[in-house]
Amino acid sequence: MADQKKLDLYKSLMHRIADINYSSAVLQWDQEVYMPAKGSTARSSQLATLAGIAHTESTSEELGDVINDLLNDESVDGKDRRNLIESKRNYKDRLKFTKDFVVKMSREVSDAFNAWQRAKKANDFSLYAGNLEKLVALKLEECEMLGYTDHPYDALINQHEFGATKESLDRLFGDVKDQLVPFVNRVLDEEPPDSSFIYHHYPKNDQWKFGIRLLEHMGFDFKAGRQDISTHPFTINFSANDVRVTTRINEDDLSEMIWSCIHEGGHALYEQGLPADDYGLPSGEYLSLGVHESQSRLWENNVGRSYDYWEHNYSTLQNIYPKNLSTVSLNKFYRGINKVQSSLIRTSADELTYHLHVLIRYELEIALIEKQIAVKDLPGEWNKLYKKYLNIDVPSDSKGVLQDVHWSHGSFGYFPTYSIGSFLAAQFFNKAMEQIPGLKADIRSGKSATLKKWLNENIHALGRQYNAEELCVKVTGEPLNLRHFMDYTRQKYCGLYPGLEG
Amino acid sequence: MADQKKLDLYKSLMHRIADINYSSAVLQWDQEVYMPAKGSTARSSQLATLAGIAHTESTSEELGDVINDLLNDESVDGKDRRNLIESKRNYKDRLKFTKDFVVKMSREVSDAFNAWQRAKKANDFSLYAGNLEKLVALKLEECEMLGYTDHPYDALINQHEFGATKESLDRLFGDVKDQLVPFVNRVLDEEPPDSSFIYHHYPKNDQWKFGIRLLEHMGFDFKAGRQDISTHPFTINFSANDVRVTTRINEDDLSEMIWSCIHEGGHALYEQGLPADDYGLPSGEYLSLGVHESQSRLWENNVGRSYDYWEHNYSTLQNIYPKNLSTVSLNKFYRGINKVQSSLIRTSADELTYHLHVLIRYELEIALIEKQIAVKDLPGEWNKLYKKYLNIDVPSDSKGVLQDVHWSHGSFGYFPTYSIGSFLAAQFFNKAMEQIPGLKADIRSGKSATLKKWLNENIHALGRQYNAEELCVKVTGEPLNLRHFMDYTRQKYCGLYPGLEG
Repeated sequence: MADQKKLDLYKSLMHRIADINYSSAVLQWDQEVYMPAKGSTARSSQLATLAGIAHTESTSEELGDVINDLLNDESVDGKDRRNLIESKRNYKDRLKFTKDFVVKMSREVSDAFNAWQRAKKANDFSLYAGNLEKLVALKLEECEMLGYTDHPYDALINQHEFGATKESLDRLFGDVKDQLVPFVNRVLDEEPPDSSFIYHHYPKNDQWKFGIRLLEHMGFDFKAGRQDISTHPFTINFSANDVRVTTRINEDDLSEMIWSCIHEGGHALYEQGLPADDYGLPSGEYLSLGVHESQSRLWENNVGRSYDYWEHNYSTLQNIYPKNLSTVSLNKFYRGINKVQSSLIRTSADELTYHLHVLIRYELEIALIEKQIAVKDLPGEWNKLYKKYLNIDVPSDSKGVLQDVHWSHGSFGYFPTYSIGSFLAAQFFNKAMEQIPGLKADIRSGKSATLKKWLNENIHALGRQYNAEELCVKVTGEPLNLRHFMDYTRQKYCGLYPGLEG
Repeated sequence: MADQKKLDLYKSLMHRIADINYSSAVLQWDQEVYMPAKGSTARSSQLATLAGIAHTESTSEELGDVINDLLNDESVDGKDRRNLIESKRNYKDRLKFTKDFVVKMSREVSDAFNAWQRAKKANDFSLYAGNLEKLVALKLEECEMLGYTDHPYDALINQHEFGATKESLDRLFGDVKDQLVPFVNRVLDEEPPDSSFIYHHYPKNDQWKFGIRLLEHMGFDFKAGRQDISTHPFTINFSANDVRVTTRINEDDLSEMIWSCIHEGGHALYEQGLPADDYGLPSGEYLSLGVHESQSRLWENNVGRSYDYWEHNYSTLQNIYPKNLSTVSLNKFYRGINKVQSSLIRTSADELTYHLHVLIRYELEIALIEKQIAVKDLPGEWNKLYKKYLNIDVPSDSKGVLQDVHWSHGSFGYFPTYSIGSFLAAQFFNKAMEQIPGLKADIRSGKSATLKKWLNENIHALGRQYNAEELCVKVTGEPLNLRHFMDYTRQKYCGLYPGLEG
């Protein structure tokens, strides 16, 4: 018999660490959504104090000992053992960080973030280059602290997508270059559809209400979550029963609100679908950023940009905005919202060119980590790659190398998870289509419950009981394979662009 | 020379404790303002964990030692010494609490608050009685843990109003019964003014905007705070630079929003006026609940229910609601908003009968603490006292014993500070009138800055450098004396009710 008292101690220590981390999350949510400007100084201090406490508690000897003791007890098996293995891995990783390093990193990140904001506003990369140089140096130090077998980048990607390596990403982005890039180029040669109706004036209040309706329609539980407005849409959770999404509303671009709502809604369904009873344990937490993103992308793209989805939802939207949309047919709407085009900004890119934006960031991160380029070379290299892959001239660093917040947060090895998520989404969605009889018809008639149930059972409820590759194999029968995304892409876009068939 | 290193350590430990407590405050604010219903279980756990951590840190040997060392160092003087004396008193009090007790209390409070919300909504005291019984038992335990000389209630009131005792409150409420109650009865015999215009339909959005305008007009800094909606209006702060007020809007009762805005605004000006550099130190914190309430009541009543105040603000209100108010003269408005009447709900009571509501709660709390009554008797006893003091029948527990949140928060010995605050407010305001040349004219012409400055300098900036009685003597030349409130009351209400002169 497993030592129940020890198991309870392990769980209560994990629960306690979760309490502290989720408290920080509430403070972060408030900071992004409601905090008044002058509150920032005290808020930084409050967050730093909580982070310090969380670090202390999650590297305590007591926790390390109870994990080891339980793992040495052969009667501890099943979910408990999987939780303990995962907890041990995280514990060991956290122990590798010295407190000095954590403090230094936190200070540099805070400085770099502020510098990035100024630089972006002033369109002047040089205001930020020094900070970014320091951060890159610290990240290299971090790689050495954490350790890796083949490539320092493995230590970075591994923190977001356990099991992924530079080698596996090279393979994946190799496939992207071989299969997706030429296909995108063929699409870009076609006559583009008209999407001008997206940019008419769409008053805010009605957009807000429509977004809430879309979330309800997906099955987002408003008794276990809410939506608010923020500059950058995000999802954050304080338990499976308190999941917050945010959106932004641009009155002159209907697409921002709609697909950010659906995207964040997909993230939120994952969090709401995690087993609430496993609060604080790996089995109660999301698996990886790639799997998280697969849930948002599946809803945003595979569902939310499909003809079937709008067959149900479009008439509602037309009724809300008759002036803008009564003369736009469903078919025209569908073509417009799926327009493929070279563009400067990743977050507003279509679902195909999006991965070229990610590819560019991946190549630059590798070059930085391998010291093939220096931080000062970034703007030039960025612009070269945008010319190479998207055939577009970058008019300013604000719309180029300064557009993303990630590097200023010290997040390297993060961007690739966006592509992993999209590709996984296609693979999951194909399997769902296979396993759910009448899924297409359900989506066409506005029934989201069958899909949500399938995702709940096959992905959400499992928490972190498997690693990403195991989950992918369990659900789809094979590891991540770009073929599924390419099949989805070819089928959809050959329909949208008849010229491609030739 | 004082040991600067020790002083810095003391301050950094206090800063850290403040970080944890203010983090809890953010979680509490969110709980009352935005948290979805199902979030409550995890939130209770998060708050309990933070409360436990705050308790550990604020009872650490390190903190106790550094406070004692510094107090033994004669070169430590002035504000530093006063902070240390106050910190030592709090430290000793907290040492009396076991960590188990603190965590238990925090969890019971969260549960009781949720139960109270459900019970109030369902008008069913029994949904909450069990939680309240547990809380009362815990409070009795708390009295014994904290210790007291004369009466267990002293241990409760002392936490909110250091220096006050059951004996001093019996004296104060004795004066209320001798002086205020007969005066109120005389007022209630007079022909009441017409206040029906208050209960016309006042659409929500315009009320919200007018409330924001009133806050701006008082000098509330919206870069260091914000207003939201909650069931029960309150003020909470996460630093002097992040002060949150809430209000509620009743479309069929204009008075709820207006005087809750002004009231909470008064609290907020106090918090925003505390010295931000003393974050976490007694000198950076409010003095007592009574003094806090003096700031809200001064604005709400002495300013916000005065003829002078509305001479400036009334035309704006009339312009917003011409249909309801264009035929209501300023004089009629002034008389209507100061109508004295027996009523059920404390928070919407006029400024005179208000203290009878407090008196009732005071008597019930004493009876509970002395075990003369049990929790299950509360609804009946409540109703009896409303009959006795206000000659009014309570139609439902939602409008009776379930109306206030306080007991569900474990706040006993809290209500009396509302009366203390009102009486202090009259005493402070009399002194302000004496010391600020042209204050009446300033209020008449909409200038709030002179009064705000006087309060900032004489009260807010001092934090907890004096105790309440010392402050009262420092500012007004004598300790709290009901005479000032009675003078204010007689002068104002004899003007409003000419029959009273006889």
